[in-house]
Amino acid sequence: MEGLVLCSANYTPLTPLSFLERAAFVYRKRVALIHGNTSFSWEDLHGRCVKLSSALFQLGVSPGDIVAAVAPNVPALYELHFSVPMAGAVLSALNPRLDAATLALLLQQLEAKVIFVYSDFIEIVLEALNVLQEKDKPHFLALINESSNEKELPVSLPPTKILDYHTLLEMGQSNFKIVYPKNEFDPISISFTSGSTGKPKGVVYGHRAAYLNAIADIFRYEMQNMPVFLWTVDMFRCNGWCLPWTVAALGGTNICLSKISGKEILDSIYLHNVTHFCGAPMILTKISDAIATNQPLLPHQVNVTVAGVLPPPEILTKLEELGFNINHAYGMSEALGPMISMSRKYQDDFSNSNEDVNMKIREGIHSIMMEEVDVKDPESMKSVPADGKTTGEIMFRGNAMMLGYLKDTTKTEEAFEGGWYRTKDLGIKYPDGYIKLKDRAVDIIKSGGKIISTLEIEAVLIRHPMVLEAAVVATPDDVVGETPCAFVKLKEGCFVTDEEIIKFCEDWLQDYMVPKAVIFGDLPLNSSGKIQKFILRDKAKTLKWALS
Amino acid sequence: MEGLVLCSANYTPLTPLSFLERAAFVYRKRVALIHGNTSFSWEDLHGRCVKLSSALFQLGVSPGDIVAAVAPNVPALYELHFSVPMAGAVLSALNPRLDAATLALLLQQLEAKVIFVYSDFIEIVLEALNVLQEKDKPHFLALINESSNEKELPVSLPPTKILDYHTLLEMGQSNFKIVYPKNEFDPISISFTSGSTGKPKGVVYGHRAAYLNAIADIFRYEMQNMPVFLWTVDMFRCNGWCLPWTVAALGGTNICLSKISGKEILDSIYLHNVTHFCGAPMILTKISDAIATNQPLLPHQVNVTVAGVLPPPEILTKLEELGFNINHAYGMSEALGPMISMSRKYQDDFSNSNEDVNMKIREGIHSIMMEEVDVKDPESMKSVPADGKTTGEIMFRGNAMMLGYLKDTTKTEEAFEGGWYRTKDLGIKYPDGYIKLKDRAVDIIKSGGKIISTLEIEAVLIRHPMVLEAAVVATPDDVVGETPCAFVKLKEGCFVTDEEIIKFCEDWLQDYMVPKAVIFGDLPLNSSGKIQKFILRDKAKTLKWALS
Repeated sequence: MEGLVLCSANYTPLTPLSFLERAAFVYRKRVALIHGNTSFSWEDLHGRCVKLSSALFQLGVSPGDIVAAVAPNVPALYELHFSVPMAGAVLSALNPRLDAATLALLLQQLEAKVIFVYSDFIEIVLEALNVLQEKDKPHFLALINESSNEKELPVSLPPTKILDYHTLLEMGQSNFKIVYPKNEFDPISISFTSGSTGKPKGVVYGHRAAYLNAIADIFRYEMQNMPVFLWTVDMFRCNGWCLPWTVAALGGTNICLSKISGKEILDSIYLHNVTHFCGAPMILTKISDAIATNQPLLPHQVNVTVAGVLPPPEILTKLEELGFNINHAYGMSEALGPMISMSRKYQDDFSNSNEDVNMKIREGIHSIMMEEVDVKDPESMKSVPADGKTTGEIMFRGNAMMLGYLKDTTKTEEAFEGGWYRTKDLGIKYPDGYIKLKDRAVDIIKSGGKIISTLEIEAVLIRHPMVLEAAVVATPDDVVGETPCAFVKLKEGCFVTDEEIIKFCEDWLQDYMVPKAVIFGDLPLNSSGKIQKFILRDKAKTLKWALS
Repeated sequence: MEGLVLCSANYTPLTPLSFLERAAFVYRKRVALIHGNTSFSWEDLHGRCVKLSSALFQLGVSPGDIVAAVAPNVPALYELHFSVPMAGAVLSALNPRLDAATLALLLQQLEAKVIFVYSDFIEIVLEALNVLQEKDKPHFLALINESSNEKELPVSLPPTKILDYHTLLEMGQSNFKIVYPKNEFDPISISFTSGSTGKPKGVVYGHRAAYLNAIADIFRYEMQNMPVFLWTVDMFRCNGWCLPWTVAALGGTNICLSKISGKEILDSIYLHNVTHFCGAPMILTKISDAIATNQPLLPHQVNVTVAGVLPPPEILTKLEELGFNINHAYGMSEALGPMISMSRKYQDDFSNSNEDVNMKIREGIHSIMMEEVDVKDPESMKSVPADGKTTGEIMFRGNAMMLGYLKDTTKTEEAFEGGWYRTKDLGIKYPDGYIKLKDRAVDIIKSGGKIISTLEIEAVLIRHPMVLEAAVVATPDDVVGETPCAFVKLKEGCFVTDEEIIKFCEDWLQDYMVPKAVIFGDLPLNSSGKIQKFILRDKAKTLKWALS
């Protein structure tokens, strides 16, 4: 068609950096971030990010370079979500609770030019750097010190020079011209998978996906203009589900906590009028434990979204009675965090029309800006019938998706085989299109021609009043192929026999799903707090020989 | 960076077509559209659009072809917003109130392969087609008939064949594979400017801009999931501000009216629980006139957004007391409709801090997804000081912008000169970044070194209790260059002298702004209902000679 032109008037690469630029202009003096006694307005925060960005440029950071960060949810990590890409670089926020060996492995992959380290984690980072070859070491290590907990360090650690976050801020120019991405598919960040199924993989996000997912978050978590967001989800996990960028888009207020306990969360909600927070289901249990007998009702409805297996119904009800609106989400690093989310309140709409209790704890349906979510036969790529029964692989596709795995084209192509992202999660689809997660493909138990979801057995086990945590894996069985074996950690001071646990399961589950063995003890967790089922599977195999 | 891949798993061209696909899947049986006794669910509507799209394909419509429509806000026009691009084609919805000569001019530019015509407008379209050369005539004319008002037509009008909307729906295949754009910058629609400053220009929108602007509309008009949208804004005007696509994105309900009167609007609000509607400021006056003495309060807050000069404060207050939340918007065809919008309620926040009444009726600040909005010196392209005084040209840039003018690269390049869209509107910027429109550059009056905004004088004139409509233009003046001349249409049965009008203006305006002459009578309107100031300017010139 004649007469058309693309130029800066009608085309700008989509990037979440534009959210901060706009927030500084539109929301100005409104509080952007609170951490203890510190608080910054959107103007302040923008100014700090520009200066930090300028300092990175002065350190020689160029477009495409990687800047890593090892820090909890402190204001500096929030700022790095903007200032690193504002220098054209790519942020990799790492889990500060990794062991030195794993951290070294990731740093080796990253070849980061600068590493920001929160003072509490300096020892582990130095230990990891020791393992690295000279060529993989960063040029600079920037220490994030909080006055309460200042660390003394050598001035350099050849070839790495040591700097300090405040010094960087001081050396930055406030008139630095930030680097916009030339192409909206340029990388903005790298998040590592938790490695529950193997070595952590570096998942690369692009500016466009981050922008679109940050907007999708607004719908996914039912946000409105100027929310008050409490940081309980780790920013190193899928860039805090892209929420640092979402909060800037809406000119909201970020609340950072020094310690994420049930009491701190509750206190912050009343103090700051928190409207939203997110994280692992464990936060619900923490809050529940912290609720006092005469706890006042929440000042208004507070939206909390958790990704993972929900805690027992009593805990949910207790929280809902206080004023929480609990949402249940499902996603993964590759999809920039939760890709679908569903309010329990909304799920109640289905409870009268159907007796299947599973209907109420489904994963949801594709949200706005997500192209397609489906359950498919992984061989034929045909959709399974939407009958609430037939199992298939959950797959999806859309713009809010990773660009691929860092330096691993083979794994990227495998993940995108057939033009869909293959979650390796098994699920079913209901007649109304809603999806329910059954299990990880590797975790599923195949017993006498039947498929058993370990998640469903675990959901029953944690309803037992004495059970704190539970994990179910397959034990080899000569007759039916595999049978369920339960690993159970009891609450402190509790005692219960394996027969009692099995009896309890019999009340809730069909015969073939009831665990044939129950083993008590601590469960092996990885650095993200996820249960390492592959270790339990090995244990369960030995058990088979012990039992036979 | 190694390991990254772009494929259908992580990249889909942005297009509002995905909103309908998703709505059919997620919202299913929910009501998508109501028109009198007709109503369609999202599944129905999707099915109809697929079939119509298939029928267009059967008629030989190929990607890039243009399909025109001459119709009011009937369900068919809503459906064409999806079914035409679903066949890969480009929709041009035309103002059905154009005269035959103008319509012929536009059709000649478009070379549309198919024209959809609502039965009421068939005569004017046939008249326009008569003027066209054979090569510019459409292959098909599809009649949109409503049972109440069926028209008989010849079966063909060589070379144009005549068809009927229902026949097309019947011939369409429901398994037609819709055509997604290959490139998100592919055109989706062409809207014509109202031609208030010359010949109407064909403004071309792309899929990406339409998608992003439809999402931006959610924030701009403060919408939430499943709104009930009343169609008072014309769908032929900037594709109804992109709202056909927005309502699908949110799974809302569209209410189409046969007649847009104040009473019909009010009745629909109570009947359907309307949450949002939009249009020209005249709708507020119509509603105000239709409010009965014992009018019950609205069932909940209803958001209404109008673009243009607001009616007098009494009308606004009357509506607000009933439960309307009035928003004031500013935009143009080139920006896909209003690009900024501001709630009057929010503007009240400023009223205490500043005595400038203009602060309360400012145009707003750039909304989410709009890159930059500024007031600049059109020569130097420097921003004017944000002092609420210095006049400059309002300019902006962002992704929600036209691709250009159809077949007119020169005008496109002129509009985007310097990488910003130049509105040719004059405005000022306040210290808080908010923008206030002063006037169209061509309308402004230059009097003794001072700049006079005709909009400000008009806002005073319509406050006079006997004035229905007013327009102010410049009269040449030998001493000060130009002086304001007011053209005024009085309300029925009213009488007032020019001295009284001038006296009234003196109470509200500074001396140099008071009109030196007042002329009573009907105002010349174009087919969009906009006052044609260029005609008044010519009249005012003659007046100068008459007065001297």
